[in-house]
Amino acid sequence: MSKEELDIVLTMLDEVRGGDLSQKPLWQQRGEMDLAGLTLPMPEEPVDITQFRAYGVPGLKFTPEGGATDKALLYMHGGGYVIGSAASHRHFVARLAVDAGITAWSIDYRLAPEWAYPAPVEDAVAAYRYLLEQGFTADNIVVSGDSAGGGLAAALLVALKHEGLPQPAGAMLLSPWTDLTQSGESYETRAEIDPLVKKVDLDEMAATYVQGGDLTADTASPLFADLSDLAPLYIQVGDAETMLSDSLRFAEKAKAAGVEVKLDQYPDMIHIWPYFWPLLSEAREACDKLSAFCKEKLG
Amino acid sequence: MSKEELDIVLTMLDEVRGGDLSQKPLWQQRGEMDLAGLTLPMPEEPVDITQFRAYGVPGLKFTPEGGATDKALLYMHGGGYVIGSAASHRHFVARLAVDAGITAWSIDYRLAPEWAYPAPVEDAVAAYRYLLEQGFTADNIVVSGDSAGGGLAAALLVALKHEGLPQPAGAMLLSPWTDLTQSGESYETRAEIDPLVKKVDLDEMAATYVQGGDLTADTASPLFADLSDLAPLYIQVGDAETMLSDSLRFAEKAKAAGVEVKLDQYPDMIHIWPYFWPLLSEAREACDKLSAFCKEKLG
Repeated sequence: MSKEELDIVLTMLDEVRGGDLSQKPLWQQRGEMDLAGLTLPMPEEPVDITQFRAYGVPGLKFTPEGGATDKALLYMHGGGYVIGSAASHRHFVARLAVDAGITAWSIDYRLAPEWAYPAPVEDAVAAYRYLLEQGFTADNIVVSGDSAGGGLAAALLVALKHEGLPQPAGAMLLSPWTDLTQSGESYETRAEIDPLVKKVDLDEMAATYVQGGDLTADTASPLFADLSDLAPLYIQVGDAETMLSDSLRFAEKAKAAGVEVKLDQYPDMIHIWPYFWPLLSEAREACDKLSAFCKEKLG
Repeated sequence: MSKEELDIVLTMLDEVRGGDLSQKPLWQQRGEMDLAGLTLPMPEEPVDITQFRAYGVPGLKFTPEGGATDKALLYMHGGGYVIGSAASHRHFVARLAVDAGITAWSIDYRLAPEWAYPAPVEDAVAAYRYLLEQGFTADNIVVSGDSAGGGLAAALLVALKHEGLPQPAGAMLLSPWTDLTQSGESYETRAEIDPLVKKVDLDEMAATYVQGGDLTADTASPLFADLSDLAPLYIQVGDAETMLSDSLRFAEKAKAAGVEVKLDQYPDMIHIWPYFWPLLSEAREACDKLSAFCKEKLG
């Protein structure tokens, strides 16, 4: 484990966030998260980035040089449904697109509190429909996301069943937030060692997101959904994060429902560590596994 | 004139852009412009910033504490129709909203080359319609923009006539790009002293924007439009910028068409200097005049 690298990441996060994140106005949190992402280095490999609008859902499309233009990664950023953007995750989705050698579509789904659940789910479905409409077949699409975006990717799979749309070739869930009630035991067992994510903050973000609605609705907390017939899942989660149970329980429940599930539980790793690939060797290793999954599922 | 302050601005621009802007991939130019804007300080006065979507046009809404929520500034950022965003202009539109004490709506209109003319004009009209739909009356709206966004604001006024929609209470055009053919004499007379804007770059951006269409179409180059019955105009332009003629000629032609026009031509000032209000006293002075115009027109 590269303790020094991890310390650099944590120091950077402290500097960017400058204390208690939740004490700042939302616009400032959003701006600082965008700044952090835009400041992180991009892959050295050439990748074109253009804007798109998928039925009104804006986003960034990544086209790596020499990549397969008939294969797509649909990506949903994290940030508790209240912050984050395609900009904050630019360096990360660029890495995924380059490594997998496919186009990547990173959406700016609507955020809370401006919009409540199920707006982000509707946007994710709209973007998926748009890819189908653009000529990508479902078996040429992988969906992915981190944290709230990972929960949203899982929710998308459930929503696709409701909509009668085909499942994608696979889904990559990175430290996904699958249970908006924080009922997993890791919120206690990892509370002391997780430097980033506190249950109290998640409770607040969940309330902001559902705005009085049902926290356990199946496309809000996909952990409580009928998980049968979902696409093959690849889940990455750190052992040092409070959100660990969200992955372990989702993996277990999906397996029990007959879904193909691969789970990598990284010792000592923190919430969405692959995001920090320019700084962290374990992140680059995790990215390698993500691109391997894409290649396995997309051929 | 604060020569030292202006030097600081030019040094910052050099650092951010790191040489010839046009030699970098578009995504990098866009990211660096967003970074520059997000790094500049915000007003000290409290202002809430939230996302909106106006019939599919995304943007940022600014609500200053104690401001009039029934009055609106519709803002279109600059960047040659190819770069720039609501994020790159966050600190500036926040300043305008706070100073004028009104809500401001800064739109992320579609950019070229992904979308050609008239997509940005359509988006501006859609956003204006949206404000009317939200209950803002035309006489409670001021439209504004800088550079290409200033040209777009002027184009919006022309488009509103075509659409049969009422003119706003006023329009503030900051170093507006009103002539995509660069036929003004300032492209020669100011070529040596303008540190920012070169005719050759504008020629390229114009071609990217209209993509083979007519550069002189009336909502592409509003200088060539029928300017009768436009809303009152307030134009700010620097004397040290190649784009000077775009303002002088537009003001002259609008006046001749019977439009109320106020023009401030700032000695020594460069393209869209008010954007640099945190660094430049002349910019703060220009901002004061902008808010005075808003107050005059909106009551």
